[in-house]
Amino acid sequence: MPRTLHLGAFLQSSGYHSAAWRHPDAQADGGLNLAHYRAMAETAERGCFDLIFVADFPGATPSRADAGARASGHFEPVTLWSALSVLTRHIGFVASASTTYDDPYLMARRFASLDWLSGGRAGWNVVTTFADVAGNFSRDEHLEHDLRYARAEEFVDVVKGLWDSHEDDAFVRDKASGTFVDIEKVHLLNHVGKHFQVSGPLNVARPPQGHPVVFQAGSSTPGRELAARTADGVFTAALAIEEAQAFYRDLKARMARHGRKPHELVVMPGLFPVLGGTEAAAKAHYEELQALAPPSAAWTTLRSLYVGIDLSGYSLDDLAPPPATVTSGPQGKLRVTADLIARTKPTLRELYNQVAQRTHRVVVGTPEQVADTIQLWFESGAADGFNVLYPVLPRSLDEFVAEVVPILQRRGLYRREYEGSTLRENLGLPRPPNSLARAHSSAAFRDARTND
Amino acid sequence: MPRTLHLGAFLQSSGYHSAAWRHPDAQADGGLNLAHYRAMAETAERGCFDLIFVADFPGATPSRADAGARASGHFEPVTLWSALSVLTRHIGFVASASTTYDDPYLMARRFASLDWLSGGRAGWNVVTTFADVAGNFSRDEHLEHDLRYARAEEFVDVVKGLWDSHEDDAFVRDKASGTFVDIEKVHLLNHVGKHFQVSGPLNVARPPQGHPVVFQAGSSTPGRELAARTADGVFTAALAIEEAQAFYRDLKARMARHGRKPHELVVMPGLFPVLGGTEAAAKAHYEELQALAPPSAAWTTLRSLYVGIDLSGYSLDDLAPPPATVTSGPQGKLRVTADLIARTKPTLRELYNQVAQRTHRVVVGTPEQVADTIQLWFESGAADGFNVLYPVLPRSLDEFVAEVVPILQRRGLYRREYEGSTLRENLGLPRPPNSLARAHSSAAFRDARTND
Repeated sequence: MPRTLHLGAFLQSSGYHSAAWRHPDAQADGGLNLAHYRAMAETAERGCFDLIFVADFPGATPSRADAGARASGHFEPVTLWSALSVLTRHIGFVASASTTYDDPYLMARRFASLDWLSGGRAGWNVVTTFADVAGNFSRDEHLEHDLRYARAEEFVDVVKGLWDSHEDDAFVRDKASGTFVDIEKVHLLNHVGKHFQVSGPLNVARPPQGHPVVFQAGSSTPGRELAARTADGVFTAALAIEEAQAFYRDLKARMARHGRKPHELVVMPGLFPVLGGTEAAAKAHYEELQALAPPSAAWTTLRSLYVGIDLSGYSLDDLAPPPATVTSGPQGKLRVTADLIARTKPTLRELYNQVAQRTHRVVVGTPEQVADTIQLWFESGAADGFNVLYPVLPRSLDEFVAEVVPILQRRGLYRREYEGSTLRENLGLPRPPNSLARAHSSAAFRDARTND
Repeated sequence: MPRTLHLGAFLQSSGYHSAAWRHPDAQADGGLNLAHYRAMAETAERGCFDLIFVADFPGATPSRADAGARASGHFEPVTLWSALSVLTRHIGFVASASTTYDDPYLMARRFASLDWLSGGRAGWNVVTTFADVAGNFSRDEHLEHDLRYARAEEFVDVVKGLWDSHEDDAFVRDKASGTFVDIEKVHLLNHVGKHFQVSGPLNVARPPQGHPVVFQAGSSTPGRELAARTADGVFTAALAIEEAQAFYRDLKARMARHGRKPHELVVMPGLFPVLGGTEAAAKAHYEELQALAPPSAAWTTLRSLYVGIDLSGYSLDDLAPPPATVTSGPQGKLRVTADLIARTKPTLRELYNQVAQRTHRVVVGTPEQVADTIQLWFESGAADGFNVLYPVLPRSLDEFVAEVVPILQRRGLYRREYEGSTLRENLGLPRPPNSLARAHSSAAFRDARTND
């Protein structure tokens, strides 16, 4: 069976470009506009996308005042995806949610519920939240990077364990005998770890997919380890194909060390295509967008790259210094930036223009040129697919589905109709077995009950 | 303007009767059946109900093995209501959620998001969760009753404050000037209390209703105080009209002491109608249901009334002892039970039959008889409306809308079409002003940003 390219649509309000909302073709109130999101979901489904994807950040901090203010006008992801799931039939719904600022029982429950509502089309993108929003959560301080990942490892294990609380056929619902559930097929998790103690069982039946699809989006070493051990998909960032290939090889090798096969995880780098009928038209569109960003945008972006470094003595025409190694920032992005600086010796202004899309690969060109990049990366061990980031919404998504998707289909790289009925099936991923059904005696829940 | 009766439909899986799922007319897999919930939402909307309502409990403990097993097959409420909100146009969506086992920032966010998705039809039923599920949440012990309510008071204040993070017109989205948000109209909450420290701002714009409608469902003294100070609606339980009248008077008097007017809160007792074409047919239907409950159901129910008391020496034909005063149970229900026992001196079996619907008023009879009870309570200071609990779903809801609603409409008690476009408008409740816009200098968020 030939490998099939997988596509996600990263949907963010008015578009991924920081000034997107100002563009005439942008839905400026997109973040809280249900009709806008519904139309985009339908467009992505028409384009046979595996999934739509949404980022998340549980706060709107002053340090991200511009971006934060825009994010303030945004639906909460799981509620939004729940609503859209019943207005669509095929597409998957991946929502980011934080292991640092949420609870594993409630998280397991919400994604299990979304999986039932959507008939097996839910996915959870595990994020650890790099920016400090401790002040919204009665906490004294934000966890450092490695602590966040240690917590995330345990958090993901607890969530997956809770999804296994019931065997798939636990609910008998036999009216005649009065047996609603086969109590032998209900399992306590009884997790006792460093960060969490969770008994279970979850109060939702095992999800249609067994486990909703688990994505992971950090590219640091702890992030890669988390993904290699636990994830079904990875959303990553790479500016150059060599970098993407190295990441891809590294991740699949790490999987093997955890006893997993390469096809059990899809690697989907971000891709930011700026489309035009000609290359010149595409470039003009990108310049039009860059010009809409406020002058302060460059410094806001640069400060996010240089966490902990004082840039006040620099001008945009100075050579970019190397970023510091810090423990609380997003490690993968810092590495990418450091590589870029070492390779190209840019000024701060040039660095900003290259990383304005947060270190995701930018392709400015015709639909053929964008399809060429996709094919090259897909066929040379750099990607199993892409999470496509759109400069301006809904315009850039409409263009991509109308102009790029047919090229990929003609080249035999991409589906013309959905293969399966669940997200997991469309991504070509196995349905996970129930860990509690095999590993535990089933007596725990029954006995606890008898002692009541 | 004449007072208008308000109706909520309490939708629970296969029905509120503990053996409902076994009935031939019940949707046995109702808890995870989207089509079932969709049909019920549409039926309730056809019946001009103000709202549909769902209980919630963040666990499935062995001590509630029978009920818990049924609850295990259930959608998480906010995700379910998000999905149904986009499939309906008028009806309100009230979801219960726990102040003991959730977080105020995440709670504020989810209900704000549901309010935006539904166009102003969201409501939050504040519950403190009386049963111990600490083991699902890495906690050593369940909070005692009064501590739960102290935390709930602060939790509700934080959530309402977060909903006021943005003034209604804060989002300018002026493409020409590049002003997305008027930063002077974004406010930090900076809450510092005994249980929570929450800075804000929330990352969702102020909800269409200002605040989603806040219900409260506890009837203890702390519960009444919480409701009188903070709630827009109360879901309560009363077996007799005198008891409901006393509760109603007490609550409205408490409101006055908090400077609120009586019409700013709707009191909606539960009502459990068992309908039949004749009184005999209705009685036969109730007996049919009671007979479907397993023999252990009586003891499960009785144990929940006698928390902390050993019933092992009793038979069902013994006289019911008085319930103990305990600190962790649902206080309102204990009081109702104690009154009932003192008044009627029942055996344990008789007590069980009377309180099998968890101390909600049971009316077994014809549609006219049910309408008579509704009218009597509504017109004699016992209720502003009812949260109607259905024995068997979808059957009992279908019957109620087909047979009872037209009688209430003919009597001029109940609407024939929706008055407003939001839940708040249909309930006749005022839209709350923004507490932060008036009480605080708006400088906080701007200044914090400048110091970045």
